[in-house]
Amino acid sequence: MPKLAEQLTNTWTQSKLKSLLHIDIPLIQAPMAGGPTTPELIAAVANAGGLGSLGAGYMSADDIRDAIKKIRALTNRNFSVNLFVPEKHQATKQQQENMAQKINQICAELNITLAPKDPPYAASFNEQIQVVIEEKVPVFSFTFGIPESHWIEQLKKNNTIIIGTATSLTEAKQLEAAGVDAIVAQTFEGGGHRGTFIGDVQDSLIGGFSLIPQLADNISVPLIAAGGLMDAKGLLAALLLGADGVQMGTAFLACKESGAHPEHKKLLLNALERNTVLTKVFSGKSARGIKNKFISEMETLENECLDYPIQNALTKPIRQAAAQQNNPEFMSLWTGQSAYLSQDITAAELIKQIKKDIDVLL
Amino acid sequence: MPKLAEQLTNTWTQSKLKSLLHIDIPLIQAPMAGGPTTPELIAAVANAGGLGSLGAGYMSADDIRDAIKKIRALTNRNFSVNLFVPEKHQATKQQQENMAQKINQICAELNITLAPKDPPYAASFNEQIQVVIEEKVPVFSFTFGIPESHWIEQLKKNNTIIIGTATSLTEAKQLEAAGVDAIVAQTFEGGGHRGTFIGDVQDSLIGGFSLIPQLADNISVPLIAAGGLMDAKGLLAALLLGADGVQMGTAFLACKESGAHPEHKKLLLNALERNTVLTKVFSGKSARGIKNKFISEMETLENECLDYPIQNALTKPIRQAAAQQNNPEFMSLWTGQSAYLSQDITAAELIKQIKKDIDVLL
Repeated sequence: MPKLAEQLTNTWTQSKLKSLLHIDIPLIQAPMAGGPTTPELIAAVANAGGLGSLGAGYMSADDIRDAIKKIRALTNRNFSVNLFVPEKHQATKQQQENMAQKINQICAELNITLAPKDPPYAASFNEQIQVVIEEKVPVFSFTFGIPESHWIEQLKKNNTIIIGTATSLTEAKQLEAAGVDAIVAQTFEGGGHRGTFIGDVQDSLIGGFSLIPQLADNISVPLIAAGGLMDAKGLLAALLLGADGVQMGTAFLACKESGAHPEHKKLLLNALERNTVLTKVFSGKSARGIKNKFISEMETLENECLDYPIQNALTKPIRQAAAQQNNPEFMSLWTGQSAYLSQDITAAELIKQIKKDIDVLL
Repeated sequence: MPKLAEQLTNTWTQSKLKSLLHIDIPLIQAPMAGGPTTPELIAAVANAGGLGSLGAGYMSADDIRDAIKKIRALTNRNFSVNLFVPEKHQATKQQQENMAQKINQICAELNITLAPKDPPYAASFNEQIQVVIEEKVPVFSFTFGIPESHWIEQLKKNNTIIIGTATSLTEAKQLEAAGVDAIVAQTFEGGGHRGTFIGDVQDSLIGGFSLIPQLADNISVPLIAAGGLMDAKGLLAALLLGADGVQMGTAFLACKESGAHPEHKKLLLNALERNTVLTKVFSGKSARGIKNKFISEMETLENECLDYPIQNALTKPIRQAAAQQNNPEFMSLWTGQSAYLSQDITAAELIKQIKKDIDVLL
């Protein structure tokens, strides 16, 4: 067994992820859907040697195509596009009506009125992935499930590298069997939506100290640790536990190039005493965010939430109004558990700092 | 900033915990109440250079005194006694009756009948801590709260080292203000009861990658990381994130000297595909254990559970019957999230292995 410093140096400088993804450092900027992952952020990360990722889960096919063009105008390095694999969902108009009425009371101060939505409740996955294929995107990552095998086959024909998201060993094994090239281990610490697609979300909440080694010991494709990683120390600890690289989301959220709302950034930069919690109240799917008034007041409705993405479509006007009114108490402030390490710097500066700290440490 | 290997070597060989606790390695065997922490286990850990801990939360004052005598007969090294700080609790006879009836249906196969209990529902904390003081126990640790200041003062007069348990920065700061000598950071990954004593348990579930650096950066007493740590890699990752030492529970649970039930040990040694979950159904207080039939069938009653320790007193006959009948489906199988690394070896062998691995790595 080589010495730890040698092991970590090897992983950092010669990670399997580097050759797989054609990047300089095994560091991925997480695909955060809903605005934060601007082409500028993605290109800044790519140009600094990491892999930038477009969180395209909520985007229309046309918007994805536009964003890809913008990214390609800003960098000639590899980048990734991430989509949400659709799931079964169902809610009657009456169920939507009941939920809308309850939420309207809670959100009275926003001066909006929610009303039941007609399908489709989300952008078309088939149209989204068609763009990924047509544009021959270098790296495709996904969460909430596994795309049907014909999509995987088409992506492979394009030499697109495929990355799946697992929250448990069972999921990681299914992803491996489906032919993914690498797996993101989404630990309990991570912000945003849980990627769980087998069993109950509550049974797949596993902290980094347990999930990383468990997957590293039992799968053979490269492993990307994600959740609560913000700096060189977190990155090296994840490599020490067996990861081949890391994916950082919240670390880039407060960066200059991030499209996160200014009020969200402000909270990140003062996050030490703010709790994050897992909640389904925004979207119908469990996600980690800073606990605000909307989450607190909706707590008793947690188990009544409509299926994702119906709840998400229903509550969208709340997030729009909150953004317009600069009211963070009704925004979905998706954030990981190490948010207190957030910095008001550029993505390039963040990556430079991490590289420098690692150089000093190793 | 010194190199990582140098930093870790310094922490491992010169940890502040070593001089504080008079131990050779900054490794504490966690105080697991309910049987696992036999005098033999505690002495084996102490004689191997770590700190063994008696999980005395459920023990009577007399039993604690006996155990201390036995430990002292087996080792002249320091050891620790851990108690549960009492909390307010209340349940009417009728509430107990209702809960008992529901549980009786779920546990029909055990052929027992639960019935409402009279107070006291738990051993007397005042009598327990009196023994700790009279016996001049070298190290006293506690969880679920902070003992009243007059107890802290008496312990300090005896030169007893005092260790508190925190699940959040807010709790850690209160413990520091109360005068503790060291703090255990109980991360989300950990098995057994959550130590949360400020705010809602759900708001203080923080993974190791976030809780360890957050506390290390913001408190000044030595920090002991606990949760999901089973081997040299986990230990070093915790030190890398800022801990001065670690506390391992589940790692010692399957050891030869542990008093855990043989069926519990068997499950630990085959834990890879078993989930652990947080549940209040056994005791009324959130605790992590392997999901079994009792937890699954009680799931709908999770929010109706009686206050700790009333629920615990009420359900005690279930655990006794399950133990007698060798039926793990009704035992409280408290276990951390890295249980799959469990080994059927002695505590001395485990510590020897960890020391050897660290020597190779550093």
